[in-house]
Amino acid sequence: VPVNLDSIRAAAQRIAGHVHWTPVIASRSFDAAASAAHAREIQVQFKCENLQRAGAFKMRGAANRILALDPDGRRRGVAAYSSGNHAQAVALAAREAGTSAVIVMPADAPRAKVAATRAYGARIVFYDRQRESREEIGREIAEREGRILVPPYDDELVISGQGTCGLELVEEAIDIDAFLAPCSGGGLFAGSSLAVIALAPGTRCFPVEPETADDTRQSFAAGERVTVPLPPTIADGLRATSPGELTFPILQRTAEAVLTVSESEIVAALRFLLFRLKLLVEPSGAVAAAAVLCGKLPPGVHRPAVVLSGGNVDPETLATLIAAQGEPSAGAHPGH
Amino acid sequence: VPVNLDSIRAAAQRIAGHVHWTPVIASRSFDAAASAAHAREIQVQFKCENLQRAGAFKMRGAANRILALDPDGRRRGVAAYSSGNHAQAVALAAREAGTSAVIVMPADAPRAKVAATRAYGARIVFYDRQRESREEIGREIAEREGRILVPPYDDELVISGQGTCGLELVEEAIDIDAFLAPCSGGGLFAGSSLAVIALAPGTRCFPVEPETADDTRQSFAAGERVTVPLPPTIADGLRATSPGELTFPILQRTAEAVLTVSESEIVAALRFLLFRLKLLVEPSGAVAAAAVLCGKLPPGVHRPAVVLSGGNVDPETLATLIAAQGEPSAGAHPGH
Repeated sequence: VPVNLDSIRAAAQRIAGHVHWTPVIASRSFDAAASAAHAREIQVQFKCENLQRAGAFKMRGAANRILALDPDGRRRGVAAYSSGNHAQAVALAAREAGTSAVIVMPADAPRAKVAATRAYGARIVFYDRQRESREEIGREIAEREGRILVPPYDDELVISGQGTCGLELVEEAIDIDAFLAPCSGGGLFAGSSLAVIALAPGTRCFPVEPETADDTRQSFAAGERVTVPLPPTIADGLRATSPGELTFPILQRTAEAVLTVSESEIVAALRFLLFRLKLLVEPSGAVAAAAVLCGKLPPGVHRPAVVLSGGNVDPETLATLIAAQGEPSAGAHPGH
Repeated sequence: VPVNLDSIRAAAQRIAGHVHWTPVIASRSFDAAASAAHAREIQVQFKCENLQRAGAFKMRGAANRILALDPDGRRRGVAAYSSGNHAQAVALAAREAGTSAVIVMPADAPRAKVAATRAYGARIVFYDRQRESREEIGREIAEREGRILVPPYDDELVISGQGTCGLELVEEAIDIDAFLAPCSGGGLFAGSSLAVIALAPGTRCFPVEPETADDTRQSFAAGERVTVPLPPTIADGLRATSPGELTFPILQRTAEAVLTVSESEIVAALRFLLFRLKLLVEPSGAVAAAAVLCGKLPPGVHRPAVVLSGGNVDPETLATLIAAQGEPSAGAHPGH
């Protein structure tokens, strides 16, 4: 099945009732800051996937993949490897579909994420990050137990599921001229940019990634998938080392350019979203907003739609991020 | 002018375009936790005044008071005393009404709040918290400069303005059986409970305050306004020492009982709202949510509407609050 507007619409129908139609919001204070950074007027519309079930857009793709299982597949159950948002999404989607899930996680994964994944009813299998490959272990378990593997992005149903984010956005947002989303494996950007362009032709699409995790930028420039060493970014959800096999060709068609942001720009955006917009967004989820806040939009873009893709942050990590700088943020929200 | 449904509707018309119609949201994970705490099913609808302009409901009352000024009043300008959300609201509302504002703040007010108030264009006059009375200084400046004093709650136009929060809530929320709001001077609760009861008769109304700042509970029990010593609560917006002269008689008519929450219950609610709902709410703004989260609802209440009244927190304060406990919150949001 190819990924296109039809497959995305089918996904939207399939997952309705299992995912939230997340709100689209605007902020005068963010617009003021973005306009100052670009020396022209910018008006942003945010798609709040941090308010999605299980805290990130990942629920869309996981639900679409798992709800599409036939009765035999549901009897067999699913497996996935992830230490992050995909793990929780697969666990929750499996529970809702009435099937079982095994999640392969590194032995040193944050305890809170392990607890959350387990709370959704999944069985956890730990592996040693230094000596074992999670892909191998995932495939082994899937084979041994007859489970269906739910990949984080390289799967037509997963990509179509993530595309429902773009579908909702383009149906609700008003008069956008650009679409920006965080990009790692590329499922969210590929699916959503397809939907946006299909329904609002001419919308300029930009995946955004950390400077230190710029595998997609390098690949886009080279015209083929490039693999980088494990990136050291604080955006822990964007540490894929290369674009996906299925997602990259879509991105090549829909993206005009790949934007990047520095680590400190990510933190500045996270803090702005938290203290002015009162929204908790995780570092990975804030990179597209960071690009707009820090003046990275190409000339001619005035009304970008920006995905805030997730909101799962550990209390300890958040405490570190907000204590990092002394900028007077709280309460200072001119025009908000 | 008495405060009633008509004065609140007039306020809604007057301030439209100057305040946000804030969203009403639900959360499966909050409902699950509240249901467990009460051993019965609870479904909450939150009115998100933390997403209001200037970060709190205070903008409603300030805008209603200031936009109602006649041309002579606008020429003269306004004055207010506050170190918190009322200061920023008066400053922003004055700017939007095209008039000037002087705000009396303690010399040791948080720099971020001073900066925010100044950024809205207000002139700041500092006073010594130990030796001077802000009320006196406020009145003195108002008299000397011919300014109109905008009281934080004891004013019909201010109470009617705050009532628009309840008006919006009752128009949007579905099938509520109770209304809860944080209570200090009582403007928000008085205005909003009036609107709620007028349009949804039979709704049971509960003001909520910190245990350590229970002047309203004491007053409600005594049948007259009681003054308490300056309360030591972390809910810095709820430190009034007695209910208002105008607000208390309204509260006596509309409230069924006054609920209270402990300091640690406030922090637990703030953390839950932040890490599960991804919403930043200040301690004062979280007390009504804390009552629901911690099992304080009276028997028979199943579908409460709860105001999250503000979201202005200093980064330093927030870092302290979220580092305080080791509870595994991030990512753990069963059913969210």
